[in-house]
Amino acid sequence: MDTFQNYIDKLNSLHFKNMYNGDFFLTWEKTYEELEAVFTVADALRFLRERNISTKVFESGLGISLFRDNSTRTRFSFSSACNLLGLEVQNLDEGKSQVAHGETVRETANMISFMADVIGIRDDMYIGKGNKYMHEVVDSVIQGKRDGILEQKPTLVNLQCDIDHPTQAMADMLHIIHEFGSIENLKGKKLAMTWAYSPSYGKPLSVPQGIIGLMTRFGMDVVLAHPEGYEVFPEVEAVAAANAAKSGGSFSKTNQMADAFRDADIVYPKSWAPFAAMEKRTELYGNGHMDGIKALEKELLAQNALYKDWTCTKELMASTRNGKALYMHCLPADISGISCKEGEVEASVFDRYRNLLYKEASFKPYVIAAMIFLAKFADPADVLKNLESKGTPRVFR
Amino acid sequence: MDTFQNYIDKLNSLHFKNMYNGDFFLTWEKTYEELEAVFTVADALRFLRERNISTKVFESGLGISLFRDNSTRTRFSFSSACNLLGLEVQNLDEGKSQVAHGETVRETANMISFMADVIGIRDDMYIGKGNKYMHEVVDSVIQGKRDGILEQKPTLVNLQCDIDHPTQAMADMLHIIHEFGSIENLKGKKLAMTWAYSPSYGKPLSVPQGIIGLMTRFGMDVVLAHPEGYEVFPEVEAVAAANAAKSGGSFSKTNQMADAFRDADIVYPKSWAPFAAMEKRTELYGNGHMDGIKALEKELLAQNALYKDWTCTKELMASTRNGKALYMHCLPADISGISCKEGEVEASVFDRYRNLLYKEASFKPYVIAAMIFLAKFADPADVLKNLESKGTPRVFR
Amino acid sequence: MDTFQNYIDKLNSLHFKNMYNGDFFLTWEKTYEELEAVFTVADALRFLRERNISTKVFESGLGISLFRDNSTRTRFSFSSACNLLGLEVQNLDEGKSQVAHGETVRETANMISFMADVIGIRDDMYIGKGNKYMHEVVDSVIQGKRDGILEQKPTLVNLQCDIDHPTQAMADMLHIIHEFGSIENLKGKKLAMTWAYSPSYGKPLSVPQGIIGLMTRFGMDVVLAHPEGYEVFPEVEAVAAANAAKSGGSFSKTNQMADAFRDADIVYPKSWAPFAAMEKRTELYGNGHMDGIKALEKELLAQNALYKDWTCTKELMASTRNGKALYMHCLPADISGISCKEGEVEASVFDRYRNLLYKEASFKPYVIAAMIFLAKFADPADVLKNLESKGTPRVFR
Repeated sequence: MDTFQNYIDKLNSLHFKNMYNGDFFLTWEKTYEELEAVFTVADALRFLRERNISTKVFESGLGISLFRDNSTRTRFSFSSACNLLGLEVQNLDEGKSQVAHGETVRETANMISFMADVIGIRDDMYIGKGNKYMHEVVDSVIQGKRDGILEQKPTLVNLQCDIDHPTQAMADMLHIIHEFGSIENLKGKKLAMTWAYSPSYGKPLSVPQGIIGLMTRFGMDVVLAHPEGYEVFPEVEAVAAANAAKSGGSFSKTNQMADAFRDADIVYPKSWAPFAAMEKRTELYGNGHMDGIKALEKELLAQNALYKDWTCTKELMASTRNGKALYMHCLPADISGISCKEGEVEASVFDRYRNLLYKEASFKPYVIAAMIFLAKFADPADVLKNLESKGTPRVFR
Repeated sequence: MDTFQNYIDKLNSLHFKNMYNGDFFLTWEKTYEELEAVFTVADALRFLRERNISTKVFESGLGISLFRDNSTRTRFSFSSACNLLGLEVQNLDEGKSQVAHGETVRETANMISFMADVIGIRDDMYIGKGNKYMHEVVDSVIQGKRDGILEQKPTLVNLQCDIDHPTQAMADMLHIIHEFGSIENLKGKKLAMTWAYSPSYGKPLSVPQGIIGLMTRFGMDVVLAHPEGYEVFPEVEAVAAANAAKSGGSFSKTNQMADAFRDADIVYPKSWAPFAAMEKRTELYGNGHMDGIKALEKELLAQNALYKDWTCTKELMASTRNGKALYMHCLPADISGISCKEGEVEASVFDRYRNLLYKEASFKPYVIAAMIFLAKFADPADVLKNLESKGTPRVFR
Repeated sequence: MDTFQNYIDKLNSLHFKNMYNGDFFLTWEKTYEELEAVFTVADALRFLRERNISTKVFESGLGISLFRDNSTRTRFSFSSACNLLGLEVQNLDEGKSQVAHGETVRETANMISFMADVIGIRDDMYIGKGNKYMHEVVDSVIQGKRDGILEQKPTLVNLQCDIDHPTQAMADMLHIIHEFGSIENLKGKKLAMTWAYSPSYGKPLSVPQGIIGLMTRFGMDVVLAHPEGYEVFPEVEAVAAANAAKSGGSFSKTNQMADAFRDADIVYPKSWAPFAAMEKRTELYGNGHMDGIKALEKELLAQNALYKDWTCTKELMASTRNGKALYMHCLPADISGISCKEGEVEASVFDRYRNLLYKEASFKPYVIAAMIFLAKFADPADVLKNLESKGTPRVFR
């Protein structure tokens, strides 16, 4: 879009009023127009920042971050998004093992929310837990607001759960839109979400699930490729299939990496753990069976090692559409010969796409900020317009 | 109060000029009118925030937090208060064991204070140490300001010491005022501060001490109940007795929980460690006698276990005034069958008061902010008026 | 300087246009006028803050801090500087052992910089590594900006590397200027940078190197004193010698503490590790030889113990110019009988200079802020003027 007014006009053409005062759990819980609203606001915020116009809509207020895992990237994306809007980040460290429930969640959620406008949670370690926990937090603060305890209901942003990784998938999609020129141009394009070998085991399923759950909504032919035994949640596959049917695209599966890459316009090769193994791990953790976890880990590494040939080579890349598919990754990638001996991708491929990969990542802070923005304002187009006409410089001159 | 002008008028009727450039150590070091000023400013700040009016009085500046213990609640309250006023929080982690003195304190206090407007300290682990440490910090920054090292003297807020927990007690009192309609309505009301069983040992005495040291100033009949051996500091009991004499209330003690609850208007059942044991622990820590500490811990747990019947049951609650006393707790509570097998309170009682408990907690950020506000402005009523008439929205629209 | 206009006039008389969009690695990479610009902006920012005028030039933006060591002082100085200008600090914890290189640095540098205006790095543990790492970070973000990944190039501030400690040396120099009245008054003054005994081993060389690399530029007679075996980097000695030749001062070395102190106007007695030993340690760490490190440590402590008489006594102080040399230290000092049995300085000497030492430290936040300021604005004099005429109060009244 060339002018700022285009973003405003676009927003005014979309229906997304249910996002106001809402939260962001899973992309497939949002309408198509709601997703478009996120992309549009993200681009509009970036447009303003690039022109040194402040997008600080909060004079004060906290953005609470709760990470069950370390995560430099997601942490910085969330902090950046909060800072962009004027919120100060306050971390709540809960530790890895302690997955609280019931009363404890309700109490903590209220205690941290007196001045909180946003809560960002990353909780992807245990199958059946992360998303559920996020819902408990949101239910608690909705009740807190209703009961007069909280003066505002903080907005939840899912920074990665056991089911979906919506800020990643949305940032990836925004990157694709920018690379292909428009959403319309994506019709009929082939996207390969494929498993790839990594020397580590147990990487979250939320990335592949997030990708197939989102990318099937834009008329693309989405192929999910993985060795036998690396299935993702069947529920998410069902979501992908339904999405594809509705969008006029397709969703298919293969156990051959080469099939997925052939004539693909976009490839996303990435390691993840088998769903069944993750369920087992969750159970073992729940029972405190540390010996069992070690045994499982060993088993998974052995299983992994059978598929070292699942790696993104330049030969595979050559088999994509005109040999020029857009290579994507959520980073950090396991690069053969660089970050590990054998990994997800050959160094020469990674190197060729490095700039594009960094650009892909650069959309995440804006996507998070847009999710917050749409939850906080009844008329976000109007607020954006006011920001632009006010024109407060981000950096004073 | 119905209108904002009421807060201004109230403030203008009070004498609190000694609070300017001051600090907040213990509630009983403050005059009655100074405490009223804190309540009034806290309510006024909340009034403005509820109406989306920014109370950011600092364009820049740091709020330093120093916690010798982990504390989600107090940490978030302090962060919220700082953020509400425009200060960025910077944590100083000193660790548990290292209780610095003399030169080290003086140096550190100056080194962290070049841009500091506030220092919040929680240091409640060692008898005879926490409050003393806070005074060393304040003496150091007063001298630093006088000697031209610091451009401003940061204000100390005692976030819990070995003697008092003033931000808790003041927030509790503000909650009581709101529940009973006014300070005047508290005359003759009975408040029971009682010990209760917890499976943990060694909880700080600063909460019961803070409660009896403050609540005796408003004409209430304050009863302190605990098993023999769970005495609090005699100096604080003396403060409570003197307060009661002056305010026209009373201060009494009992070793029967039921006595305390009978016809009480307010009950505050909570575990704490015996004073004598805490003194012993401080000495053992000082000498590095870890074996001695383990032995002491064992002894205290055994002693504790004798008093499992000191728990807030629905029968006890039924014995309070009309069976409807206000149940209070600083949270988190040890709830029988929820957070522990046997604890301070029955689940059905806790459940009935949950919303009120969360509301109680919600006053703390405002109380901390009010303490800062009163220390920073010679004419706080005027500043509040300016904030209201300026009317900068907290969230831009 | 008496009036604000003096700072503006001074700045307008200096050439420093290469600082715009630049970074601050080593003082000797900067021209004399560029250093003067830093001193002038630092004083001007302090002038404004002392008059309650906000110097917040960023409405939003992040200052990233990366510390390979714990460091209360430097951390607070950096946080203070960022806060003074309106940047929120976000910490990136990389841990001690992991010295990243190549791709990893390039990726991390970009991932943390989407909203970053400043990156402050302290990385002084390994010889030949810290400064190199900083350059890798800067090269990465320059490329990131050029390739359209970053919307702004963050400015690097070297918060201590293996070679120099420019924020310390510059703050020290600003302190000296204030104490002696002007840079001009320093001509012919004698400054003694001398080794002193400390019970710890392995203190960084960057302080003495920073001092001799900077102080030789102002026409002073700089003497470096240390026992044999405690040589600093030969390259930095060469820099000091060249500086002295150019500035009309001198740079000399001695193995006698008394020689250095005799008739000195300024003394800076401080422990540091032998260069050769630090090189050996870096190699041992690189190879993971923990046993070797322990052996080296033991050897260094034994070597150290030979020079316990290298301590700043009141007798030595009496031998300085009129017995009144300015005693300096970067703090914390090892004070005999206070922080250790035998250390760098006698308690009576330290005590006499305590206020001056704290003042010395107080310049660091302003020096860091000035380095940022000069990198961010093409016409900093104009921005300062605008800040003054706008006159936004730092604390609202």
